[in-house]
Amino acid sequence: MIIFGVWSLEFFKIEIYMSKVGVIMGSKSDLPVMQDAIDILKGFDIEVEVDIVSAHRTPEKLFDYGKNAHTRGFSVIVAGAGGAAHLPGMIASLSPLPVIGVPVKSSNSIDGWDSVLSILQMPGGVPVATVALNGAKNAGILAAQIIGAHDTCVLDKIIAYKEGLKLKVNESAKDLK
Amino acid sequence: MIIFGVWSLEFFKIEIYMSKVGVIMGSKSDLPVMQDAIDILKGFDIEVEVDIVSAHRTPEKLFDYGKNAHTRGFSVIVAGAGGAAHLPGMIASLSPLPVIGVPVKSSNSIDGWDSVLSILQMPGGVPVATVALNGAKNAGILAAQIIGAHDTCVLDKIIAYKEGLKLKVNESAKDLK
Amino acid sequence: MIIFGVWSLEFFKIEIYMSKVGVIMGSKSDLPVMQDAIDILKGFDIEVEVDIVSAHRTPEKLFDYGKNAHTRGFSVIVAGAGGAAHLPGMIASLSPLPVIGVPVKSSNSIDGWDSVLSILQMPGGVPVATVALNGAKNAGILAAQIIGAHDTCVLDKIIAYKEGLKLKVNESAKDLK
Amino acid sequence: MIIFGVWSLEFFKIEIYMSKVGVIMGSKSDLPVMQDAIDILKGFDIEVEVDIVSAHRTPEKLFDYGKNAHTRGFSVIVAGAGGAAHLPGMIASLSPLPVIGVPVKSSNSIDGWDSVLSILQMPGGVPVATVALNGAKNAGILAAQIIGAHDTCVLDKIIAYKEGLKLKVNESAKDLK
Amino acid sequence: MIIFGVWSLEFFKIEIYMSKVGVIMGSKSDLPVMQDAIDILKGFDIEVEVDIVSAHRTPEKLFDYGKNAHTRGFSVIVAGAGGAAHLPGMIASLSPLPVIGVPVKSSNSIDGWDSVLSILQMPGGVPVATVALNGAKNAGILAAQIIGAHDTCVLDKIIAYKEGLKLKVNESAKDLK
Amino acid sequence: MIIFGVWSLEFFKIEIYMSKVGVIMGSKSDLPVMQDAIDILKGFDIEVEVDIVSAHRTPEKLFDYGKNAHTRGFSVIVAGAGGAAHLPGMIASLSPLPVIGVPVKSSNSIDGWDSVLSILQMPGGVPVATVALNGAKNAGILAAQIIGAHDTCVLDKIIAYKEGLKLKVNESAKDLK
Amino acid sequence: MIIFGVWSLEFFKIEIYMSKVGVIMGSKSDLPVMQDAIDILKGFDIEVEVDIVSAHRTPEKLFDYGKNAHTRGFSVIVAGAGGAAHLPGMIASLSPLPVIGVPVKSSNSIDGWDSVLSILQMPGGVPVATVALNGAKNAGILAAQIIGAHDTCVLDKIIAYKEGLKLKVNESAKDLK
Amino acid sequence: MIIFGVWSLEFFKIEIYMSKVGVIMGSKSDLPVMQDAIDILKGFDIEVEVDIVSAHRTPEKLFDYGKNAHTRGFSVIVAGAGGAAHLPGMIASLSPLPVIGVPVKSSNSIDGWDSVLSILQMPGGVPVATVALNGAKNAGILAAQIIGAHDTCVLDKIIAYKEGLKLKVNESAKDLK
Repeated sequence: MIIFGVWSLEFFKIEIYMSKVGVIMGSKSDLPVMQDAIDILKGFDIEVEVDIVSAHRTPEKLFDYGKNAHTRGFSVIVAGAGGAAHLPGMIASLSPLPVIGVPVKSSNSIDGWDSVLSILQMPGGVPVATVALNGAKNAGILAAQIIGAHDTCVLDKIIAYKEGLKLKVNESAKDLK
Repeated sequence: MIIFGVWSLEFFKIEIYMSKVGVIMGSKSDLPVMQDAIDILKGFDIEVEVDIVSAHRTPEKLFDYGKNAHTRGFSVIVAGAGGAAHLPGMIASLSPLPVIGVPVKSSNSIDGWDSVLSILQMPGGVPVATVALNGAKNAGILAAQIIGAHDTCVLDKIIAYKEGLKLKVNESAKDLK
Repeated sequence: MIIFGVWSLEFFKIEIYMSKVGVIMGSKSDLPVMQDAIDILKGFDIEVEVDIVSAHRTPEKLFDYGKNAHTRGFSVIVAGAGGAAHLPGMIASLSPLPVIGVPVKSSNSIDGWDSVLSILQMPGGVPVATVALNGAKNAGILAAQIIGAHDTCVLDKIIAYKEGLKLKVNESAKDLK
Repeated sequence: MIIFGVWSLEFFKIEIYMSKVGVIMGSKSDLPVMQDAIDILKGFDIEVEVDIVSAHRTPEKLFDYGKNAHTRGFSVIVAGAGGAAHLPGMIASLSPLPVIGVPVKSSNSIDGWDSVLSILQMPGGVPVATVALNGAKNAGILAAQIIGAHDTCVLDKIIAYKEGLKLKVNESAKDLK
Repeated sequence: MIIFGVWSLEFFKIEIYMSKVGVIMGSKSDLPVMQDAIDILKGFDIEVEVDIVSAHRTPEKLFDYGKNAHTRGFSVIVAGAGGAAHLPGMIASLSPLPVIGVPVKSSNSIDGWDSVLSILQMPGGVPVATVALNGAKNAGILAAQIIGAHDTCVLDKIIAYKEGLKLKVNESAKDLK
Repeated sequence: MIIFGVWSLEFFKIEIYMSKVGVIMGSKSDLPVMQDAIDILKGFDIEVEVDIVSAHRTPEKLFDYGKNAHTRGFSVIVAGAGGAAHLPGMIASLSPLPVIGVPVKSSNSIDGWDSVLSILQMPGGVPVATVALNGAKNAGILAAQIIGAHDTCVLDKIIAYKEGLKLKVNESAKDLK
Repeated sequence: MIIFGVWSLEFFKIEIYMSKVGVIMGSKSDLPVMQDAIDILKGFDIEVEVDIVSAHRTPEKLFDYGKNAHTRGFSVIVAGAGGAAHLPGMIASLSPLPVIGVPVKSSNSIDGWDSVLSILQMPGGVPVATVALNGAKNAGILAAQIIGAHDTCVLDKIIAYKEGLKLKVNESAKDLK
Repeated sequence: MIIFGVWSLEFFKIEIYMSKVGVIMGSKSDLPVMQDAIDILKGFDIEVEVDIVSAHRTPEKLFDYGKNAHTRGFSVIVAGAGGAAHLPGMIASLSPLPVIGVPVKSSNSIDGWDSVLSILQMPGGVPVATVALNGAKNAGILAAQIIGAHDTCVLDKIIAYKEGLKLKVNESAKDLK
């Protein structure tokens, strides 16, 4: 969170704490997918803290993480999980912060439908911002956009990023011709 | 749990604590479905304790419940929930007891697929015994069967119950002719 | 967006523009669903501007809206649509702001799967924060959480809201007993 | 479009502009699938103009393309896209021409269901002529049939093409015996 | 089909046969859905001929219809059917004309998936231009667009129709405010 | 069909025409799947006639085949097809014989759902006896069972075949121990 | 089954046992659906014996029925069931006769998908001739066709029945005009 | 089942028969999946008896097994099967013991949906405790939990097992940092 600190007429002191994004996943096997979120956030110069938090195997850690995230300097949490993916929804249950859920297509998943529906279909009162199956890259961008909603510096980077997407398409269109 | 108590050569004292089943649900709106589990268990003279525990709205209660169920005299927990139904899986995460999950078809559910998959597709290490969509009656019977696995009195009741099913079918077959 | 305005040693002037949320929908028939987003945001004292923008019938308005939303004082856009729901994704294509998509179960929808997948499965680079089918209430809460990520006043309201959810469950649990 | 040009009693001058088909796709990665449409159209001696137009990454190009296609000599547009495939529907929103949509099964697609439903389930007023998953060949034939609906020369080629299909089946039936 | 007829230096005679659209359906019970196609085409002043042709119950009529449609003055055929909807695909098998398929959600349909997939997933070589479930209105518009691809008069009507859609959305947007 | 021929008091002459099964498929590419039906029928010493009949590419052959099958000595027809699999349903439309449909999982199929639903969901009046996805072996057994319904010789072979299945399972059970 | 009985040079005695169809269902609640099979068979003057046999509640009756059906004069068995519909497959396991399975859409079914897949997806070796969801009428016709495969009298009735279908469509087509 | 045996004032003799779990599967090809259940149960020092019982190919063995399991010393039965997986449900039909069903994703399965629904959607009265697709490991743990519900020794092992899961996650979290 950006905190515009203390300042006086004489001593200008502005302390800016950068927004920090927590990227967590239910299992180390989710890392190849979740790395996209980490990379894109680092590309936006946004601080990222990565951890493994399993809703089903480390419920106490889940509780600690969820309960304290908003007091530990996080602005957004990106949570990825596969199968009966409870991690994003349980973090959303415990934290007042916006939680982005990434459905991961794991090996015994039923084509990914299980993680998509487990993350998406949250009950009224407890939202999870769900992105596409294996869409960790978009989860990172969305986290940046959430920070950018109040940080024009990040917003400008997103605008530039979108321009970059445009250029790449135009180049590939030229290649085609 | 049945505990064959303390006994000595002189004073035979056998204390039998009946097995108790915890029936919980994510919302009061799940009660019309979950009542079937309560009724069938009571029909088997099994003690039932009913509660509302929401994984997403009362995470602390969820934790307390899951952590302590096996020390509070429960043998089995039946948990019903709809949508992104995290209650059964989170109780299974927290408790060493067998947990039976009932997918409830709630109003904004996607035809029940969301609750079925959220409950069924648990990761390796943390099972939930899933029954059919809205299958609370079967959850109750399954809980009784789990108790019956070591309590021949309950087992006999299940055998009798199954005979009863047979008789009803035979009667309706007679009606047909 | 909160903009800490211009200030000088002599004239302290702090202009604070409150964050504003744009709630748009593809058709007037989506209003009964989308009203939940409007109500919850108003309940958090967040300014809401409601409009109908059809990706398929008013593409020029879509373009105007998407292109200019971030310069018109919006922090977040909530977009609801049914069927081949292109509105949220197209706004996300045009705007650097975080876009929340609400899949609406319309009359000729294939059980809502069409709007869910059209909104959720965005390509890499252009995220939409998707909520549950007809989950406009959660879209409103998520928009508030995005604002709350940098506005502690709103964050506190969300914390209070979550406490309220807890109380309601506890009360209904008491009613049960 | 065929335009029967200017003619006078003295100078017979008939200018015939052949119908042209625009084949566009959301990403260069769609080309292996979309090439089938290009090939079949060239096989029918129909002019094809290929381009990459991304609804989500180049929305301005999308607008230009859709708004002007009918004045640039196109009779039909074939648009292929994967995932939350918005390209065909947005072109249909912007252009009065018939638009054929090809759902492409991309890498992170949920078995192709996402692109099928995003393209097929257009709202009343804005049709997209959807073909089978990865059915670019059929999109090309359909485009030819649309031209053939008013160009007997193309119609004859389609009739011949269908005879060719018949011959191939008959030959493979002979091989079997 | 528009046929620019015979003319000579002395006697200008231009015979214009208007394009005709065949609207067929597998059963009379499909009429409430298919009426939308008929109405929209009549609204565009396009000649419509309506018939019931059942692929499964009147295969000979199916054959006659499909074989001869292009010599009977039809430019496009709109075919609606439910369940294992074979009518559109079989007409497409028999006729060189563009065939538009309307999946109808009939009473014993599996949520419409059967008719959608039976019509959409045609093999390479024999396309059906599929529209949304119960999307007969769009089938009518698409038929008009196919005619409009070579008939500027119809094209202008489609452009006007799309303007009308815009106006309605704008009015409902005003009502909202 | 078994025809108990002409006999007189003096000259006993019994002509028995064996039942013949027609195995047809929409494309040569279906042969690897359909071979199972051919093999199992030959294993039961039932005459099989194999052909390629494409509903979409050889509609005239389809008509001939369907119209005449019951006069050409066939008792049952086994028809396999993939995608929008119309072959079994159209044969059932044209022939009074029992038609067994085999949904084939072809390359561009949507996981086989398309062929399953296109074959299974026939309208009232025109049944297709559908077997499992790629279940050509079972189609062959079912054809034999249909013949066995009136030919005790074949019935006995089926009983023996089922005994054989049993033996194999028992052997593999022994191997396990 | 038709059995051409005992005959000698002196006493011609031909005993003809008509083919009999067994129509069974898992529950009395399936009767409204299954009645269609009974009615159509009676319409073809085929003997029908109706019974309720529950795979899950009367397994002994299931065994008796399946084991002895072919010695009790049945030619075909039509079995209808909903949910995890095991009745048709278990009868097919026990009997060498052709078994027709009718998936019934029961109250707690997941849109009928459960009964469709439980009946259709039988393993190699044990086919069930599956008809459409709630397609009991077609099950009856299919049973008649199986008998008709060796009984020209029934075959003629099926041909007549199919003519009747044709007439009804033609009449409704006339009504339309 | 634990039977506290015969004891007298003079000769204390306590015979303890350990609970035994029956692990059965429909085919030897299911063994690679089902081995996980066997391994985990052996890891808990629980006696396991493995067998192949095919509902469709060895119905008599199925009957014997189901009818007698509870008198042969089994406490729980774990049954795995693919496709139209009838084994778990039929055992549940025949036995009063708790039955755990493992849907196996076999080669011709429709993505596993068939076995999931065939096992899960049991009718009221006859539950099967269903675990995730290919979730044999969880079936083994669940069987242990059922025994642990009355055997504190096993319960302690489960508690320890869950601690082990926690440690592994924490270690992989450390590796990440």
